[in-house]
Amino acid sequence: MKILAFAASLRTASLNRKLIQQAATILRAVPNVDVDQADFREFDMPMYDGDLEARDGIPAGGREFIRRIQGSDGLVISTPEYNGGIPGALKNAIDWASRTEPIPFEGKPILLLGASPGGLGAVRSLWHSRVPLETIGAHVYPEMMGVPRAHQAFDDSGRLQDPNQLSRFQGLLLSYIDFVRKLQGTS
Amino acid sequence: MKILAFAASLRTASLNRKLIQQAATILRAVPNVDVDQADFREFDMPMYDGDLEARDGIPAGGREFIRRIQGSDGLVISTPEYNGGIPGALKNAIDWASRTEPIPFEGKPILLLGASPGGLGAVRSLWHSRVPLETIGAHVYPEMMGVPRAHQAFDDSGRLQDPNQLSRFQGLLLSYIDFVRKLQGTS
Amino acid sequence: MKILAFAASLRTASLNRKLIQQAATILRAVPNVDVDQADFREFDMPMYDGDLEARDGIPAGGREFIRRIQGSDGLVISTPEYNGGIPGALKNAIDWASRTEPIPFEGKPILLLGASPGGLGAVRSLWHSRVPLETIGAHVYPEMMGVPRAHQAFDDSGRLQDPNQLSRFQGLLLSYIDFVRKLQGTS
Amino acid sequence: MKILAFAASLRTASLNRKLIQQAATILRAVPNVDVDQADFREFDMPMYDGDLEARDGIPAGGREFIRRIQGSDGLVISTPEYNGGIPGALKNAIDWASRTEPIPFEGKPILLLGASPGGLGAVRSLWHSRVPLETIGAHVYPEMMGVPRAHQAFDDSGRLQDPNQLSRFQGLLLSYIDFVRKLQGTS
Repeated sequence: MKILAFAASLRTASLNRKLIQQAATILRAVPNVDVDQADFREFDMPMYDGDLEARDGIPAGGREFIRRIQGSDGLVISTPEYNGGIPGALKNAIDWASRTEPIPFEGKPILLLGASPGGLGAVRSLWHSRVPLETIGAHVYPEMMGVPRAHQAFDDSGRLQDPNQLSRFQGLLLSYIDFVRKLQGTS
Repeated sequence: MKILAFAASLRTASLNRKLIQQAATILRAVPNVDVDQADFREFDMPMYDGDLEARDGIPAGGREFIRRIQGSDGLVISTPEYNGGIPGALKNAIDWASRTEPIPFEGKPILLLGASPGGLGAVRSLWHSRVPLETIGAHVYPEMMGVPRAHQAFDDSGRLQDPNQLSRFQGLLLSYIDFVRKLQGTS
Repeated sequence: MKILAFAASLRTASLNRKLIQQAATILRAVPNVDVDQADFREFDMPMYDGDLEARDGIPAGGREFIRRIQGSDGLVISTPEYNGGIPGALKNAIDWASRTEPIPFEGKPILLLGASPGGLGAVRSLWHSRVPLETIGAHVYPEMMGVPRAHQAFDDSGRLQDPNQLSRFQGLLLSYIDFVRKLQGTS
Repeated sequence: MKILAFAASLRTASLNRKLIQQAATILRAVPNVDVDQADFREFDMPMYDGDLEARDGIPAGGREFIRRIQGSDGLVISTPEYNGGIPGALKNAIDWASRTEPIPFEGKPILLLGASPGGLGAVRSLWHSRVPLETIGAHVYPEMMGVPRAHQAFDDSGRLQDPNQLSRFQGLLLSYIDFVRKLQGTS
């Protein structure tokens, strides 16, 4: 099973990069799970523009995003919260990716994670981000996990410091993998 | 496999009762699918009140709702739209049902349908209703179907008149059943 | 100016009752502001049922709710979060109140508050509750305030203990009153 | 009073451009209303990237967007629906604009319109778009208007063909202007 994992942030020091790194480390230890850990910069693309699409088709970054989704059995996305919602860049990537048939998100199991320096842990972004993904047929896993005060959450090696939080995080990832297996008929 | 099916409306002539009847008819023709078709009046219960709960526990209608959810492998709910959202009565039933452990909705696959006399087919209610169900761990099927102008949608025998719409409706129900089977490991 | 204030909870020891009491105390000190502080039990009503409505009209508790909204220039509602969303009882009260013409919520400025024992302060309920209120024309004030860990937030006299939180709460209430005055043309 | 009006679409033949043109024509006929009709291409900007911001500040298109919002008393935005939600490009523009203090959307009255070729008239985008705007303090007008089957809605001169729809549209714009005047204290 291959899981595409990325943080929906372009910033090098992003807290969501740390969280997806932690998720990838845990997932790689699960038998029969491969992780395709992407840098969101690999999916660099312009704003969706129907004229551009008519002239040049889907841009290279969008085609790469589509290719990586198609090659995966599920996605784990760690997303920041911008203004109480989905980052524009993540929504734009979804918008471009939805322009191919069949829509690559259809039927894909997706786990949404989030990290924020504030006390709410990106929870509003997680709920706002479900909407477009479910609209195009993704099975967004019901449980999500937002890490509040994420600038204090990791130790120097990038590990979640709070053992209870780490344990919950591991449990969530394993439950999600079990869900992916069920959808594949391999559990 | 047993599917609990009900319309989240108390009104006898409810368009959502017609839609759930149509759904139940289709589901009963699927091999190995049993339908537990409930009348929402069976789940009559007072408003959630923590004092009432402390004194008397979950009321009879709530216990019946819980028992029926526990006995099912999935739920098909047809919901009206009240003021752009979930009917208070449906939310209240969810609120009471969530007061038992484990929460009976957890891990249940749910298909949301809707019917309305207007042009939008209860679409806003469908999206508003996902939120509490997903919060308590239900796998709400990504695709939903709202029937607009539902007062004109059924023939005298209660069948959806538009063959394209009927065909889409059947396809959605079968896709949902396939999803339930995958989650059960019986597909 | 008269502000209808209530907690959307039936429980006697509700944290939201404490928060609305704190809000009412602050509002009563504002010149030219009267507070109609209601107990949500005054608006006791059955589940919305179109047959019941056709036979008996809007029930007494619903008529009382409508009368109190009509007599107010704005509403301050403190709402718990049940399963990530609006309490069924609050939604049901809105559903019944919307059955009179003109809909009494239309054009009313509403401030949403919330309190919860958890770390998120009912924030998901606040956002979920905006939807039906805005659908029927209420001007829900953009800023809202959820009080997390609310079981520890009040001192014995019912006052918010954290001076910064209290100050923000007062500021929000005053900004809201200013908004009501602007809508009335009396600022 | 100056209203910034734009369609959140880059496509030249966008249905939302037609709708915002119709809105601008109506608004220009209202006494004391000036319309600053923008082309969304004027607000061309890269994806939000915290590293880019730290190095170069807000990009030129973002600064232009901020300047135009600051110079307006309100905004009328006509937005397409992409995958059941806000276009990534619109969200990205909001994300960049929110990076200046005070946030230029704060306290601004905003009217959301939408147009789509489908039957739902972008209604899901309208509701999804409210969330980030309200999060940063905008007074999003409760009523919104989505034009379904918009490819058939306009005559050759760009006018809404259905007189009832046109009349509702005019009424909504005038109600919104009245709301802006109230917030300004000039009604």
